Amino acid sequence: MAQRSSRPVSLEDALAWIDANTTAMAVEEVSLTGAAGRILARPVAAAIALPPFDRAAADGLAVRAHETLGASIYNPLSFELVVAPDALPKLGTVRVNAGDPLPRGADAVLPLDHAALDAAAGRCEIVEPTVAGSLVERAGSQAPAGAMLLPARRRIGPAEIGLLAAAGMADLPVVRRPEMRVLTIGRDGSRDADGPLLRALIERDGAVMAELRRVERNRESLRAALLAPGPDIILVAGGTGEGSDDLAAEALAEAGLLAVHGVALRPGESAGMGRLGSGAPVFLLPGAPASCLWTYELLAGRGVRRMAGRSPALPFPTKMMRLTRKIVSSIGVTEIHPLRCGDGDEAAPIASFAEAGLMSAAAADGFVLIPEGSEGLAEGALITAHLYAAS
Amino acid sequence: MAQRSSRPVSLEDALAWIDANTTAMAVEEVSLTGAAGRILARPVAAAIALPPFDRAAADGLAVRAHETLGASIYNPLSFELVVAPDALPKLGTVRVNAGDPLPRGADAVLPLDHAALDAAAGRCEIVEPTVAGSLVERAGSQAPAGAMLLPARRRIGPAEIGLLAAAGMADLPVVRRPEMRVLTIGRDGSRDADGPLLRALIERDGAVMAELRRVERNRESLRAALLAPGPDIILVAGGTGEGSDDLAAEALAEAGLLAVHGVALRPGESAGMGRLGSGAPVFLLPGAPASCLWTYELLAGRGVRRMAGRSPALPFPTKMMRLTRKIVSSIGVTEIHPLRCGDGDEAAPIASFAEAGLMSAAAADGFVLIPEGSEGLAEGALITAHLYAAS
Repeated sequence: MAQRSSRPVSLEDALAWIDANTTAMAVEEVSLTGAAGRILARPVAAAIALPPFDRAAADGLAVRAHETLGASIYNPLSFELVVAPDALPKLGTVRVNAGDPLPRGADAVLPLDHAALDAAAGRCEIVEPTVAGSLVERAGSQAPAGAMLLPARRRIGPAEIGLLAAAGMADLPVVRRPEMRVLTIGRDGSRDADGPLLRALIERDGAVMAELRRVERNRESLRAALLAPGPDIILVAGGTGEGSDDLAAEALAEAGLLAVHGVALRPGESAGMGRLGSGAPVFLLPGAPASCLWTYELLAGRGVRRMAGRSPALPFPTKMMRLTRKIVSSIGVTEIHPLRCGDGDEAAPIASFAEAGLMSAAAADGFVLIPEGSEGLAEGALITAHLYAAS
Repeated sequence: MAQRSSRPVSLEDALAWIDANTTAMAVEEVSLTGAAGRILARPVAAAIALPPFDRAAADGLAVRAHETLGASIYNPLSFELVVAPDALPKLGTVRVNAGDPLPRGADAVLPLDHAALDAAAGRCEIVEPTVAGSLVERAGSQAPAGAMLLPARRRIGPAEIGLLAAAGMADLPVVRRPEMRVLTIGRDGSRDADGPLLRALIERDGAVMAELRRVERNRESLRAALLAPGPDIILVAGGTGEGSDDLAAEALAEAGLLAVHGVALRPGESAGMGRLGSGAPVFLLPGAPASCLWTYELLAGRGVRRMAGRSPALPFPTKMMRLTRKIVSSIGVTEIHPLRCGDGDEAAPIASFAEAGLMSAAAADGFVLIPEGSEGLAEGALITAHLYAAS
């Protein structure tokens, strides 16, 4: 029987293994409409200038600026008011809305309150002069054709979608989403919380749940489920502890490479990881839901995020806060402790994941990581809190 | 022709109108599998206790604690090693994995290294005593049946999904997603950036794009498009400026109520809002993409988020940062200025949205709001930066 290493691997070494064994997936093209939340695989350059033509920066009258020279309320200048011409006639003007292309010949936009319009007569009296370029947004002023619009690895949010639509991009090169196989080890009398939990986590991190399967609690079934071809990443939930005869670890050791079994992380000490001959990384997560959650967040999720082309860091904003009560921790283990945080900078520790399981995760506003070299955190200590987003 | 009010409404008054005219949608039931990202409409109580039975808190041997009294390496006590019994026989023990239900009669779990197992003989020698309750997670210790698991308005994230799955919930009462109609006013020679931009924004905020339609630039078409039955919220992009004859505002005034036209917000001064006889709020957004973005974020988005049951606040984490350069602003207008932020606490202003449009939004790491009473922010000023999430 494979022995669990007597000393668990430090979190730092576990992360180094993950970073050495995961890289971003290949490129695929997707349409801009379906690109929200995806990650750019390559920088995107402007195929056309932005804006593509000289356009009105405000509502008003397009004019040849030099023709307005000398206009005042004592000397109104009369212009022909034309409608949608290709080119502006001499001593002509045309109404434009902000964003409209200027007709050929026009070089300025005059504010509406600098003129009196007589639309019926097709005339207009201008009472203030303007200068060339006034209220005009020049072609290419935001970005000349060929300029970089967005760098590689940028996540496509609403502003990026708008910018790319304005630049006329229809398809984008993005990082392919990793396809995940999630295997949960059956346990008598227990509802499967790990499957739904992991589905929500991997979708948050940009991967796809290609397959979620409950596997019998025996090595042969698990080995076969590991070796069936297809997935980019495999997660196994359950069967990691010693009571299970190291079921998951043994099955992985037989199916491919078991690189780590036992990580100095609480909750989550029995986690493991390795990979198959196909190159697909395999993460072994404890079956207890709170342990499954945290070994996903800190270990498997880092691999998923890296393969999805995202930042490998924990996907939560951080804030410096002060602890309202001390937290005791064990030397030699990185501990994750739930916090309740107010609007100010105070963070109150709540019942640990060992005591209250996912109830603590659901009751928490965030969490703190207590490094393995620490015996705990004192009351009043300044900590880096990781915060869940508000609804 | 309806006149735009000579003084634009303050952002504060605009927000007050939104808060007075939008409430969360009605409840609908969804399956837990599809509930990620949804908002709980009611508190959810535990239908069963959590855990539902006494279960092993660690891998080990389930025993009657009092039978182990006196065990030591000098006095090993012999137990029958049984497999999966309903009830533990007298002087019997059974291997359990963390999370397994205890057999009837068992009241403690003994760590595996406190016993020597002979599985073939079906015997086991116990060399350390234990006490009742040791390594046992009691039924109801996380939550008794009937206890509140999650409060109303909680956003369903991965931990909530896991908790509810463990509690055996199959369906959840959530806030219905508002169905949106988005009308973009056609503009010659310009690509439609506002439609894709708004789709990404409303989906982020928990609403559904039920209909995206380009409308001709005339009042009659727009009025008809506003009045077609169906949507919970309508957004109109474009046609808000004076050059448009106040097209959007006039159409809304005819179709229902135009409550606000002109907001002291930059970019976005020509924004408007009101509602239809159906009660559906209507937001009029300027057509220039950067103005469309920011009037959505500050005005329409607040309404969408409220109707989706979410926090109305801007959906970005905030951080206190120091400005590396001053920003000049106009008194009487709330200005939104893009920032580039490092890992530290320094925030550098970049080209304004007026200068660089969505290029600024895409280049920024976040933004700062400069209140209408301010003439700007000094170099070194401590500001509240709103930060886009990292990829």
